[in-house]
Amino acid sequence: MNIIKYPTKEAWKSLMIRPSFPKADIEKKVKLILEEVKINGDKAVKDFTFKYDQVVLETIRVDEETKRKAEKKLNNQLIEAIKLAKNNIYKFHNSQKTVLQKIETSKGIQCWQKSIPIEKVGLYIPGGTAPLLSTVLMLAIPAKIAGCNEVILCSPPDKNGNIHPAILYAANICGVNKIYKAGGAQAIAAMAYGTNEIPSVYKIFGPGNQFVTIAKQMISIEGIAIDMPAGPSELLVVADKNANADFVAADLLSQAEHGTDSQVIFITNNETLLQNVLKALNFQLQDLPRKIIAKECLKNSYAIIVNSIDEAIDFSNAYAPEHLILNIDDFEKQSERITHAGSVFLGKYSCESAGDYASGTNHTLPTNGYCRSSGGVNLDSFYKKVTFQQITKEGLEAIAPSIEVLANAENLYAHKNAVTIRLK
Amino acid sequence: MNIIKYPTKEAWKSLMIRPSFPKADIEKKVKLILEEVKINGDKAVKDFTFKYDQVVLETIRVDEETKRKAEKKLNNQLIEAIKLAKNNIYKFHNSQKTVLQKIETSKGIQCWQKSIPIEKVGLYIPGGTAPLLSTVLMLAIPAKIAGCNEVILCSPPDKNGNIHPAILYAANICGVNKIYKAGGAQAIAAMAYGTNEIPSVYKIFGPGNQFVTIAKQMISIEGIAIDMPAGPSELLVVADKNANADFVAADLLSQAEHGTDSQVIFITNNETLLQNVLKALNFQLQDLPRKIIAKECLKNSYAIIVNSIDEAIDFSNAYAPEHLILNIDDFEKQSERITHAGSVFLGKYSCESAGDYASGTNHTLPTNGYCRSSGGVNLDSFYKKVTFQQITKEGLEAIAPSIEVLANAENLYAHKNAVTIRLK
Repeated sequence: MNIIKYPTKEAWKSLMIRPSFPKADIEKKVKLILEEVKINGDKAVKDFTFKYDQVVLETIRVDEETKRKAEKKLNNQLIEAIKLAKNNIYKFHNSQKTVLQKIETSKGIQCWQKSIPIEKVGLYIPGGTAPLLSTVLMLAIPAKIAGCNEVILCSPPDKNGNIHPAILYAANICGVNKIYKAGGAQAIAAMAYGTNEIPSVYKIFGPGNQFVTIAKQMISIEGIAIDMPAGPSELLVVADKNANADFVAADLLSQAEHGTDSQVIFITNNETLLQNVLKALNFQLQDLPRKIIAKECLKNSYAIIVNSIDEAIDFSNAYAPEHLILNIDDFEKQSERITHAGSVFLGKYSCESAGDYASGTNHTLPTNGYCRSSGGVNLDSFYKKVTFQQITKEGLEAIAPSIEVLANAENLYAHKNAVTIRLK
Repeated sequence: MNIIKYPTKEAWKSLMIRPSFPKADIEKKVKLILEEVKINGDKAVKDFTFKYDQVVLETIRVDEETKRKAEKKLNNQLIEAIKLAKNNIYKFHNSQKTVLQKIETSKGIQCWQKSIPIEKVGLYIPGGTAPLLSTVLMLAIPAKIAGCNEVILCSPPDKNGNIHPAILYAANICGVNKIYKAGGAQAIAAMAYGTNEIPSVYKIFGPGNQFVTIAKQMISIEGIAIDMPAGPSELLVVADKNANADFVAADLLSQAEHGTDSQVIFITNNETLLQNVLKALNFQLQDLPRKIIAKECLKNSYAIIVNSIDEAIDFSNAYAPEHLILNIDDFEKQSERITHAGSVFLGKYSCESAGDYASGTNHTLPTNGYCRSSGGVNLDSFYKKVTFQQITKEGLEAIAPSIEVLANAENLYAHKNAVTIRLK
């Protein structure tokens, strides 16, 4: 980690910059993939699957029998772990249901909002060396609570043309309707435009590599909604003199192992803790299977010493981290001062891993400072709020003068006339 | 209007297509404007203002004296109209505040969401022949209710270098902090990147022409949030035999006068009403100051006769209109069947103009079928929801097996270790 001591406010700016990687080349490739899938549908999906996943697919959809048999391939421990996490995630997201009330804005005018589930949603689950089954839970559970009619899932097949049974099982018990063996930009394109096998959806959720992220951004311009532009993951830990250095180091590494483009930031007002955390980091690193990744990430990362915890919180607000751990005594008071963060973990036992898997909160969160304007995925992400209004003659009479004058001021005579003609 | 009689379901598809206009040429121009403003800041904003608005600006910001004097330039009737509308819009949006509760997902684990206002937002108000002061109300009122710290507004100056006093007055009484004379893509770029005069913001709201819309989409890819990709406006009216043909025609024209690229659709199950509406349309068109625009819009528009009101609602759901008027007897029952719409107006006195100006609902709504995935602007548009969690040792112990097993399944050993080390 880069050690920064008592940076001035002017020096903060350079510490806010996230590691960046060139993407111009990828943009061209993604554009081509989108066009190909739009024109050639399933054939293009299969061609790109062969190119990028090195496997020849006969059908893209996972059949019912394979889905049914998935459970038998998992050990009981994993099944229980999934069920426990599912239970907590369900509870927290189900509690996010809101009752929307009818409001009489003035006599005879009733206005209200109604949460209507998004009819068709697509979930993207990345492939790679390990099955990201926790992301299946994080996306499918709120989708089904909201009542989305069609919840489909795309994930790239492994070299044998299969999706990991843990993903199939998690998708099954969460009520995902259809599962497709498709990854990368081709999966995003298929869910955006629809193919013979893969239906088009109205909103696409889920993380992915740069191909996936850029594809999601491109189709969002074409009118398909996306959850958010997800980038590399981030964690900021604020800790004070009473924090356990081992806990802090473990948290930093739990983020650092995500990818070489991740970033972790540790801020404290205590020099002894800083030294102890650095020592603990080196010690814990030795045993990590993903230590090469974590080490690379730490090169992009900072350990910062500041004058006070107040200043640490100010820094955090300026940085706007995806995950924020407040491993400090007065986390209650300081948490009130948080203005920009994706998900906040309070106290020494609230580790990021808890929120990543099983406490109940969602782990699909805004990165790269995007939490300044947006929250993470929640139940509302699967609804749209539609406005309704019902106006009586008396209600219209009361606001008619205002409408007529305003429409007139905007030179919109027909707008005015729609009122005038009703009250003649 | 194009009259379509009893279309088959197969024929529906072509009726769903919105009028489209080429935009490739504009994209290049917008890209250049964004780059120029990013590099040259205020100088670029002034240069583009000279190019597109034909006016030389000394300063971009509207000074306090000009803002103060705006009220004196308005007649009392307009001031009262603005106040009445403001009152209803305030009431409806203020009622959208929600109390978010803390949830114990399992013993010792508390999770909750907190609505935190977006610190800095930018409102774009188009220029043109008339001041769109109603849009100022629709955006500034919820921004201030949410508690956004900095609410800035950009609107293009007229030939004399001024913004219409009605816009200044509306912005003032709604609490807009700073107003800038900047329009088009250069205004969006300035609010996204910041210049010496115009501060950068985290989210940009407001309608505009194709330059503005494309600029908003482009900066959204760079991580600045936008309210929605607003396109040409739409209205769909469903009416039955008891509907007043004059009311229906007036509603259709109130939408048609917006722009030649707008679209209006009228659906009924009653041939007599269809004929009467067409007659009323022709009659009412004669007196319209904007009849050339409205006529052009009607060329892109449809009057459709179907077998039943049920079928009309099915069609509306397939079309997914921005505005939907149900001028039918059993609007209560049929409104329950609405799945895709931006804003719904129930009964014969609920005209779209009411929602455009003064009933209290927001008029910033999703167009071009975007209501399939997204609602219009509401109070939540000015907040982000941040998740918090607080876990005790006992709480962590209860979910530790789940976290450890899941992290292990995902090959994320450091995630597992952050839990294990705490419970050792």
